[in-house]
Amino acid sequence: MEHYDYTQEEERILVTKRIEKMSKYIETEPTKKFFRRLQLMTVIDPSLGIRMLVNLGLFLNCIRGNGTDKQYEFWAKHKEAGKVKQMYGCFGMTELGHGSNVAGCETTATFDEETDSFIIDTPHIGATKWWIGGAAYSATHTVCYARLIVKGVDYGVKTFIVPLRDSLHNLLPGIAIGDIGAKMGRQGVDNGWIQFTEVKVPRFFMLQRWCKVDRRGNVTLPPLEQLSYISLLDGRVGMATDSYRIGARFTTIALRYAVGRRQFKSEGAKEETKLIDYPLHQRRLLPLLALTYVAAVGTYRLELQQSDLLANLDKALANKDKLLLKQSISGTKSLFVDSGSLKSTLTWLAADLVNECRQACGGHGYSAYNGFGKTINDWAVQCTWEGDNNVLAMSTGKTIIKTVQQILSGKKLKDSTLEFLNDAPALYKAKKAVIRKADHVDDIDRVLKAIASLIVKISVDLIPISNTSWDSIGPQRVILSKLRCHYYMLETFKEKLENQIGANSPLRPQLENIMKLYLVSNILSPFIDEFLKNGVISPAVAKYLTIEYPQTLCSEVRPYVIGLTDSFQQPDNFIHSLIGKYNGDIYSNYLGAIKDIHDPANHKAPYSEDLEAMLARPSLVARERHEKTAEVGSILSK
Amino acid sequence: MEHYDYTQEEERILVTKRIEKMSKYIETEPTKKFFRRLQLMTVIDPSLGIRMLVNLGLFLNCIRGNGTDKQYEFWAKHKEAGKVKQMYGCFGMTELGHGSNVAGCETTATFDEETDSFIIDTPHIGATKWWIGGAAYSATHTVCYARLIVKGVDYGVKTFIVPLRDSLHNLLPGIAIGDIGAKMGRQGVDNGWIQFTEVKVPRFFMLQRWCKVDRRGNVTLPPLEQLSYISLLDGRVGMATDSYRIGARFTTIALRYAVGRRQFKSEGAKEETKLIDYPLHQRRLLPLLALTYVAAVGTYRLELQQSDLLANLDKALANKDKLLLKQSISGTKSLFVDSGSLKSTLTWLAADLVNECRQACGGHGYSAYNGFGKTINDWAVQCTWEGDNNVLAMSTGKTIIKTVQQILSGKKLKDSTLEFLNDAPALYKAKKAVIRKADHVDDIDRVLKAIASLIVKISVDLIPISNTSWDSIGPQRVILSKLRCHYYMLETFKEKLENQIGANSPLRPQLENIMKLYLVSNILSPFIDEFLKNGVISPAVAKYLTIEYPQTLCSEVRPYVIGLTDSFQQPDNFIHSLIGKYNGDIYSNYLGAIKDIHDPANHKAPYSEDLEAMLARPSLVARERHEKTAEVGSILSK
Repeated sequence: MEHYDYTQEEERILVTKRIEKMSKYIETEPTKKFFRRLQLMTVIDPSLGIRMLVNLGLFLNCIRGNGTDKQYEFWAKHKEAGKVKQMYGCFGMTELGHGSNVAGCETTATFDEETDSFIIDTPHIGATKWWIGGAAYSATHTVCYARLIVKGVDYGVKTFIVPLRDSLHNLLPGIAIGDIGAKMGRQGVDNGWIQFTEVKVPRFFMLQRWCKVDRRGNVTLPPLEQLSYISLLDGRVGMATDSYRIGARFTTIALRYAVGRRQFKSEGAKEETKLIDYPLHQRRLLPLLALTYVAAVGTYRLELQQSDLLANLDKALANKDKLLLKQSISGTKSLFVDSGSLKSTLTWLAADLVNECRQACGGHGYSAYNGFGKTINDWAVQCTWEGDNNVLAMSTGKTIIKTVQQILSGKKLKDSTLEFLNDAPALYKAKKAVIRKADHVDDIDRVLKAIASLIVKISVDLIPISNTSWDSIGPQRVILSKLRCHYYMLETFKEKLENQIGANSPLRPQLENIMKLYLVSNILSPFIDEFLKNGVISPAVAKYLTIEYPQTLCSEVRPYVIGLTDSFQQPDNFIHSLIGKYNGDIYSNYLGAIKDIHDPANHKAPYSEDLEAMLARPSLVARERHEKTAEVGSILSK
Repeated sequence: MEHYDYTQEEERILVTKRIEKMSKYIETEPTKKFFRRLQLMTVIDPSLGIRMLVNLGLFLNCIRGNGTDKQYEFWAKHKEAGKVKQMYGCFGMTELGHGSNVAGCETTATFDEETDSFIIDTPHIGATKWWIGGAAYSATHTVCYARLIVKGVDYGVKTFIVPLRDSLHNLLPGIAIGDIGAKMGRQGVDNGWIQFTEVKVPRFFMLQRWCKVDRRGNVTLPPLEQLSYISLLDGRVGMATDSYRIGARFTTIALRYAVGRRQFKSEGAKEETKLIDYPLHQRRLLPLLALTYVAAVGTYRLELQQSDLLANLDKALANKDKLLLKQSISGTKSLFVDSGSLKSTLTWLAADLVNECRQACGGHGYSAYNGFGKTINDWAVQCTWEGDNNVLAMSTGKTIIKTVQQILSGKKLKDSTLEFLNDAPALYKAKKAVIRKADHVDDIDRVLKAIASLIVKISVDLIPISNTSWDSIGPQRVILSKLRCHYYMLETFKEKLENQIGANSPLRPQLENIMKLYLVSNILSPFIDEFLKNGVISPAVAKYLTIEYPQTLCSEVRPYVIGLTDSFQQPDNFIHSLIGKYNGDIYSNYLGAIKDIHDPANHKAPYSEDLEAMLARPSLVARERHEKTAEVGSILSK
């Protein structure tokens, strides 16, 4: 628990020790197992996660995606970056003046034919690399996103390996680096800024899988720009999964507290009421539990979708399998949409979830030792980095609108996760509301159809405006992206439920309730105005869907909350919260630990003297040396 | 800026120095001026605010509200608590097991007739006083909320002055105190826990304005319980005002950044587009600016309403003016509803506002030096303490429902801020939607009527359910409370605009746009499903109100954002954010300060050695002393 008292420096030291420990596992266990370990450790220590993933994820994925096989082999294996050894990479993309618009980066990499090298340079302060995780003190190398300039021609932003520190861990000539200092969270990460002053790197330090520069300065450009960005998707997929894990942790804490805590007595009752038995409390927390369940399954599908895609892409390239390559390119497009939509929607929802869970624990949610504060701070950046949520969601929304437009013009999607939009012509024409009666909402296929209809109707409305200005429909594009995420998750959960849980399983009714609670409270209720405005849901059932049915479902889920949260199987060191421990002995756990951390024997603070002096200060008149008294007045006025 | 790097201990020391400084002003300037100073200082340093207000606000207000005039005079004046001298009070209300339900507190104050004193005792750990601001190291006294027990009879929770530390600042016998330690925010406040073991205080340490115990143990109970809680309203009113001030600070930061920051070029453009010129960005920030303007005026009215009420109450009691007393009692009821509704609604909205502003500044919003992180952490507790928002809102909602019920049964309200509900019978019966055409929304009286209608219709729906269970309609009671807040604010802004800004003033159109943007984006849009479900707004205008008109208003407000934010007149030390400074030179301010705070000359971290050793570690085989090699295998297998 003392961890929650750590200063920035202590936290960074702790994270370093943990990296050191993890670096031993990566030498000895299978990659898949190691990355699952890292993912779980990230729940406990997000700073650890990011410091390792900057090297193993962003840095190496960038080399893998943009470098040749030999280049990847050299840096990852021969130089052992993949074992967190010899070198430590960071990811030099973002600049002070450019984050979302990577293509607008201003660092330059100018080809110098004479020495067969690139000169990396920061032309002005806006082009300073900024936020670079690990740069401040850890990294020995960076991949540097810089504008390729050859013979005066700007070929746009490409990637280069640039060494930052020598083998004695001292900065190399031409490299200026500083600590970016305190952040809202993730204090354990040493983010830094980097400026390059005419730093020369050999030509072969350019990552040249797709883009090449030869000895004479002839430039070969990539066949498809999007391929260079596929390596970025890894982080987005991971953040979607993180959202589920954080949800599992905090719904568990808040629900355990809600079951243990009593407050206010109802008339005639002997004991006070448990928080969880208040309908408002149920309405606040149980939909979040349902969301977490559905996200568990949805994000797992996304992980598989990504790993299958990468495997197929490798296979297709290796075997020159054109059909598989074509499918993989479709798959890439789907993954851009799905990961963008899930990353943005779920990291937002997870942020809200943790905040709501904190408030649901009242004052105790504000204690650092219950875990909320640190997570809120660490989490916040997930909505911003590796694709700002609004930018990602707008991009997803744009693809959806374009897709609907193409389908309405006769195109049919294949090998795409957006195939459900192939029904767009019929969905668009339908005049009758999809959900017209109360029991319609229990038919999951119908609910999926309702979401699809809404996506289509909103899109169709926007097509004419999009022809003149995509920007002006930004807010609606964000809504489309969220709806797409929910369609994906509901579709996945339904399918899993049908295929993996027997019709007679005792789990079935519980999981069905969870699914229904999810859909009424996380999809239909928050977007009810859109459903109504677009005639997809009849006004007659609106109240039932948004008020009555969610409450009914809550009261059906209520008796199972302990089982449903214990099922996440999180040990106490994952929960890492005094009021959320498995044994449920809230007050003893809490007071006991607080006494351990802050020995009550230390009852004077370092500032006690100042405080005591203030309280014991003489009167104002005395402090002014009695110079302003009437007596003095009579003397000085003479 | 270094402030943002402070550890908990450094922050507490800084706050102590500031308290010491402030204690000099309170000796020399008029009360009103001092409290305005403190309110403004609280924007810069919320921990300072709370540490001073625990003594000057909570502690002394409690004595003033619950003690006799002589008792107040003794502690506040003779003992100089009101000058932050001789003694320092804290507010011993909350317990480990009881926060919202004050009446459920379990600390006991048992009358001991023999010694004419009360014995204050903590019967079990759940009754430990918890979260007590200033208790850990600062306070010399507390007001202790404890159950009055006389001759075995429990008279419920009353208030007692209990000394905690002697004049040498050492703990008194029977007092156990500990530091509660790290919190999500407000690290500068030394919150503590307190346990009492048979602590004896003289009978006259009981606050006995309303409740008295005489020498023989005869108990006189207060005429009206609510009167004892009036002193709590001060904090709620203050938090409503804080919400406006925080809004002013952060909309200014985010809008200055949005005007200075460019990202992405539109086709054919020479420069990248300013963030503020993206419609989505306008839709995210300008409604928050409008909200802040309206909250400025609304919360100022609430402050006046409170100070008038207290003045009248004093006057009525002093002059035994029955009519004025009756009015004051009505006024008290109004203030309970209004402060509860504004405190909860506005602190929630302010939390969302700061979060949205942070996200709107992208990655730079995550830097501690831009102010968001600390404020988000410091602010969060405003939604929880001095009346948990959901509990307060439910309470307000309950009063509203009961009021509507009474009015429908023929009662007319007088001297109440809820008088607008006197039209309930007509509003309820009306079949036609109040807002049916686009231009209806420009008629503010009509919009007010729409809100009133919605409040009435929702209430009427709930009356039958409320007869059996208030709990089950918790969620809807919260909605009513929010609507009441917005009615109050809109009504106030409209009136101010009409009375204080001339029809031909050049300010008029700007402020009208602000008001309209506020109402469409903060009232009509978020509650559109309620307005539609209850037939108060016609579906035909829903899209116009929630999408088209807000965007039009945003683009009308857009050219004036710098003027509108500069008008808050916040100097840079209030803004306290590198990207939000008045000069607008974002990147130079930012990089320059970061370099000052973290000298790039210090390029090795304290943990560098560990890191270097890890990177330079020998191979696994070597580290395992070459014991697992095939060669060894052949030896050991023989």
